[in-house]
Amino acid sequence: MSFSPLIRQLIDALRGLPGVGPKTAQRMALSLLERDRQGGLRLAEALQQAMEGVGYCSRCRTLSEAEICELCSDPRRDDSLLCVLQSPADVWAVEMAGSFRGRYFVLKGHLSPIDGLGPDEIGVPALIERLEGSAVTEVILATNPTVEGEATAHYIAGLLRPLGIRVSRIAHGVPLGGELEFIDGGTLAHALAGRTLIS
Amino acid sequence: MSFSPLIRQLIDALRGLPGVGPKTAQRMALSLLERDRQGGLRLAEALQQAMEGVGYCSRCRTLSEAEICELCSDPRRDDSLLCVLQSPADVWAVEMAGSFRGRYFVLKGHLSPIDGLGPDEIGVPALIERLEGSAVTEVILATNPTVEGEATAHYIAGLLRPLGIRVSRIAHGVPLGGELEFIDGGTLAHALAGRTLIS
Ligand SMILES: [Zn+2]
Ligand SMILES: [Zn+2]
Repeated sequence: MSFSPLIRQLIDALRGLPGVGPKTAQRMALSLLERDRQGGLRLAEALQQAMEGVGYCSRCRTLSEAEICELCSDPRRDDSLLCVLQSPADVWAVEMAGSFRGRYFVLKGHLSPIDGLGPDEIGVPALIERLEGSAVTEVILATNPTVEGEATAHYIAGLLRPLGIRVSRIAHGVPLGGELEFIDGGTLAHALAGRTLIS
Repeated sequence: MSFSPLIRQLIDALRGLPGVGPKTAQRMALSLLERDRQGGLRLAEALQQAMEGVGYCSRCRTLSEAEICELCSDPRRDDSLLCVLQSPADVWAVEMAGSFRGRYFVLKGHLSPIDGLGPDEIGVPALIERLEGSAVTEVILATNPTVEGEATAHYIAGLLRPLGIRVSRIAHGVPLGGELEFIDGGTLAHALAGRTLIS
């Protein structure tokens, strides 16, 4: 197929987006070219500004173009609670859920000795530094419910307990609205082990 | 949810792409920011160049940054066959199919008197001009197999026949590999009416 060079270049670049295959990229390119050139130019501008301007918050390490992000600088949030997560996407997920009003700290993934990712690589020293002299009284470890996420939570819990900070782990169990027959065995085992009495 | 302004702007702009909802736009923004800033900048550049540089071929009216597109200037294609379609996307679809080696002419949609779209609006005079003094001996009307596409083909056929040009219509029928029970009644009726003898 002989697309013109600029159209070919656009289709190829669109395929760099997650979940976008050749057909979808063609449909996107055509839609912008035929019906929304202004939208295409706006997207080009937004991409350039974000790729060049967005860094990481120096306090919580989530994605932010400000030195201190809005979540860290919002005076209405609870300074005594710190939720530790594995990625900026997890911050977004917890914010979407809407019930947490404390602060965040973002690790760079999870411990993975086999990949050379130890405490220093994932940012544990920065977490300790964040806690020193802070108002945090409880750290909620919200790393993923995977083997690596569990190991990472366990390791950090061991470091923090001697500092006199309360350490908690997000609950594992059956997702709300889930049907038991479709839930994996590990989750079911966790849900059973973590059962609570109905008063 | 409080994304930083540049991230919010990027997510909003990504939502302008067809088929991209809020969750997908977030996943795309995050993927570019966390894992592929170079890809994001390449996409920004490709978008800007395409939105500003791609126009329409002056000969066939498909999308092209060149005054005369590659399909029109390729000396290996057959000048005697002209395939008339409703949009650049249709040119791409026929090119993908790979069997047609003639030339193209792209209308701007189909006749739609109720929307004020007459022959002038969809480019019929330009088609007549394209044919004058050309080597075209057969025009293949490949407008969509819809009521409007049929009406458009019928109208153009009526104009071209007096000019001594052979006019044909793409065949309608059961798609290859389709199963009869899932094919709509109109298509089936066409397929039956257009049946051919098995020799
Ligand atoms: Zn922050
Ligand atoms: Zn052309």
